[in-house]
Amino acid sequence: MTRGIVLLAHGSRDERWRQPIEAVAARVLADEPDARVACAYMELAEPDLPTAVATLVADGATAIRVVPLFLGMGKHAREDLPHQLDALRQRWPAIGFTLARIVGEEPELVDLLARIAVKS
Amino acid sequence: MTRGIVLLAHGSRDERWRQPIEAVAARVLADEPDARVACAYMELAEPDLPTAVATLVADGATAIRVVPLFLGMGKHAREDLPHQLDALRQRWPAIGFTLARIVGEEPELVDLLARIAVKS
Repeated sequence: MTRGIVLLAHGSRDERWRQPIEAVAARVLADEPDARVACAYMELAEPDLPTAVATLVADGATAIRVVPLFLGMGKHAREDLPHQLDALRQRWPAIGFTLARIVGEEPELVDLLARIAVKS
Repeated sequence: MTRGIVLLAHGSRDERWRQPIEAVAARVLADEPDARVACAYMELAEPDLPTAVATLVADGATAIRVVPLFLGMGKHAREDLPHQLDALRQRWPAIGFTLARIVGEEPELVDLLARIAVKS
């Protein structure tokens, strides 16, 4: 099994907006040099999720985890993302896809954000 | 000095979108019971930043830190937020205001997001 990880973020026309997302990708690669890692964006930036997944598959990934780097998730994304995953599974039936919960729902993240907020 | 902390997030019409932000606020209060804590939203949700600050001031805060809970920040917010802080300083000259960098630029957060992304 070759792991693929897609870091899925909202997106922005502004290149600097994407720097933290790309920093996370670089950090994942440093921690897991054998993983295939891609950033993807919901809107206003390239690539979108299917394009990022196609790149990872072409690069040999056989199990792909989509990690939504959202602090909050509204109804639209909550309903739309599982549909997008279904479409990916239909297009690449040999690939195992997993959709992680949004990072904002990780207790460790809530703890860290609180620590960042109170530090002087 | 009585600390006030504003957790500033993008905002959404969807109540569930705001839950992680409110979870961070609850966690800050658990860690710092004497602090005054408020959530505020850039758009699509109430209160906005000036309203949240007015609440904290009315509640006795004398030094207020605004913490942007954004993973990425585009040109608009990057230019607009310092102006918003200037307006707050003019309106409440006796209050010490600090604008934190966005949480997406905190190395600890990048590390944690990478760990969340690789966990299976």
